[in-house]
Amino acid sequence: MRDVAIIGTGMTKFGNLGRVTSRELVTSAALEAMNDAGVERGDIDAVYLGELSGDIFEHQMHAAPGIPDYLGLENTPSTRVEAACASGGLSVMHSIMAVAGGFYDVVLATGAEKMTNLPTAHVTEALSMCADDIYEVSLGVTFPGAFAMMARAHEMEYGTTPEMRAAVAVKNHKNAMDNPNAQFHKEITIEKVVNSIMVADPLTLYDCSPITDGAAAVVVVPWEDRHKYEGPAVKVRSFAQASDTMSLHDRPVLTGFKTTQIAARNAFERAQLQPKDIDIVEVHDCFTIAEIMAIEDMGFFKKGEGGKVTLDGVTARDGQIPVNVSGGLKAKGHPIGASGVAQVVEITNQLRDRAGPRQVPDVNIGMTQNLGGSGSTIVCHILERGD
Amino acid sequence: MRDVAIIGTGMTKFGNLGRVTSRELVTSAALEAMNDAGVERGDIDAVYLGELSGDIFEHQMHAAPGIPDYLGLENTPSTRVEAACASGGLSVMHSIMAVAGGFYDVVLATGAEKMTNLPTAHVTEALSMCADDIYEVSLGVTFPGAFAMMARAHEMEYGTTPEMRAAVAVKNHKNAMDNPNAQFHKEITIEKVVNSIMVADPLTLYDCSPITDGAAAVVVVPWEDRHKYEGPAVKVRSFAQASDTMSLHDRPVLTGFKTTQIAARNAFERAQLQPKDIDIVEVHDCFTIAEIMAIEDMGFFKKGEGGKVTLDGVTARDGQIPVNVSGGLKAKGHPIGASGVAQVVEITNQLRDRAGPRQVPDVNIGMTQNLGGSGSTIVCHILERGD
Repeated sequence: MRDVAIIGTGMTKFGNLGRVTSRELVTSAALEAMNDAGVERGDIDAVYLGELSGDIFEHQMHAAPGIPDYLGLENTPSTRVEAACASGGLSVMHSIMAVAGGFYDVVLATGAEKMTNLPTAHVTEALSMCADDIYEVSLGVTFPGAFAMMARAHEMEYGTTPEMRAAVAVKNHKNAMDNPNAQFHKEITIEKVVNSIMVADPLTLYDCSPITDGAAAVVVVPWEDRHKYEGPAVKVRSFAQASDTMSLHDRPVLTGFKTTQIAARNAFERAQLQPKDIDIVEVHDCFTIAEIMAIEDMGFFKKGEGGKVTLDGVTARDGQIPVNVSGGLKAKGHPIGASGVAQVVEITNQLRDRAGPRQVPDVNIGMTQNLGGSGSTIVCHILERGD
Repeated sequence: MRDVAIIGTGMTKFGNLGRVTSRELVTSAALEAMNDAGVERGDIDAVYLGELSGDIFEHQMHAAPGIPDYLGLENTPSTRVEAACASGGLSVMHSIMAVAGGFYDVVLATGAEKMTNLPTAHVTEALSMCADDIYEVSLGVTFPGAFAMMARAHEMEYGTTPEMRAAVAVKNHKNAMDNPNAQFHKEITIEKVVNSIMVADPLTLYDCSPITDGAAAVVVVPWEDRHKYEGPAVKVRSFAQASDTMSLHDRPVLTGFKTTQIAARNAFERAQLQPKDIDIVEVHDCFTIAEIMAIEDMGFFKKGEGGKVTLDGVTARDGQIPVNVSGGLKAKGHPIGASGVAQVVEITNQLRDRAGPRQVPDVNIGMTQNLGGSGSTIVCHILERGD
């Protein structure tokens, strides 16, 4: 198995991008990543696309071949992977596997979603299909409801307060101020979050990530080939994926995700690293409670302490372990299929000292956690500064 | 890169299966494949699922984690791949890559679709989304129309007659008589095909594959581990994938698929084999013209001769090179995500002398060709009898 490098990144602005297709968005992000890496069209051996549902959002299935088509990569194999909001993470992971396994030498990992074509209620309905249709969705559960149950359980078990959850949103909105691609450039306060309209008790509007259009892309090559190209390289130390039951009622606890715990543990073991070795993290904050559970489940903090440490600033950009410096899904935006790729874009750029005004100093090892559904899929990556 | 074996196969009956979910269908096919292989639940390291659209057909996205959930494979990574009707082929291919690359030791490749929940017109509309929505579907093109254009082009260029196309359907219906899992057990005649109602001129009803529910599964392990398990092994000699433009108008010719030509050529090169070395083939006969183009594009016959050789019986079960002995998509049925996996099931069983009444004698090397959209994705596999 070969070591693997990421040598180029690209992403579109995240937000309501109007009359544009996801195919065009991916093309834009991919060209930026290819230019950054210094790879030519003829270099690319394969493409992966993380996308939740072109059919529902754009009346377009079979979206993967559209990427090499628009990029002019004649006949290049192109595969869509889907695992709800973890689709992007799986696109990156399969690109890494394809290079590590020796099947291809240059792979373009992409992710995209064009969500704002539909009214909000239709988007919520579409996203709900990522939960268990048989036992949950048919009974009225949508994701705000599912994560509200987790927030309530966390509150009851560990005393996590609305203010602690709100601190996640406040931090991520603050971080997004320095991310020109972020959907929101607006600082908020704990009071604003706590007093915003209730979406699913106890989660308010500002506890929830928004509906977003956008795409992201990275270029993956063998580590030994990294100096053939222009982009500074970041080394892939490990990746890991885990799944869990579709329904929440099949799980013994609701205060965390066994999938995050397993995927993070496997990623650490494969990289021969521990949580204390990680300098910067992007986690899946689809709801504020999700970030709190993630930083606990990944082992950065003891179970139940995630809310408190966030309120105390431990995960701020200048804190002990910066979490979601990009603005996270909450403020950078959450174009489903793109989010897992965009996490890798952020960590890669941080490890290459290319994160501009939000650059965190002295970061050498970074990690991502991308979540699908009610945590039924988790993908983690650990990346290291290259040479 | 490790050599890879297929050691177990399973599939459900194909047809209108009533009130059942694709998750249940995959579970059934997977258990059959696991029993055949002699692998236990604890052995399985990862699952792949080929599925076109759980969202449209079953109001269920994020279907992949549902498979290990129902199978009791706790926390096993599970990934959905989608490339229209080639989704199943990509499920098998990624399972092979995952084992060959050394990432996992036992992988379950599955595919499924539950299509009969919707009225026929809705299914045609859903499937049309696999063509280019921007330049084709929005102007009224559906797949019968797209393949009708190809049939007409082939007719004009090479004199391929309705009777030659009909011979594909007649042969495949005859083959399906000996496949207990096939959707149709009804022999038809050339006259019946030619005189059936017109769907898209010149393609009639019997030129088209049906709407089908079903699932299929195979178990993939390292070649060196094959004797640890019970199932007789088949060796994976090669695989290849290619993509092409989404729209037909971007292609120089309509009488064949460059993707099939490239994927087949790459598969032959990687296996160090030639078309003459292949003893048995399963190709993607979504429409009769597709089988004719496939056997030409793969190099078994010269361009333009596919129709004539079919009419002459060269591709019959007792012909020079048996094509679609399973009954093909035409008569076995075409549950989209399952079809590419079912092709591998058939070739594997033929190479293990386990094809029952339709067993072709003395077959050592077999090949599959799985097509997505208007040929925008093609996946080929070459398999060899094991020891």
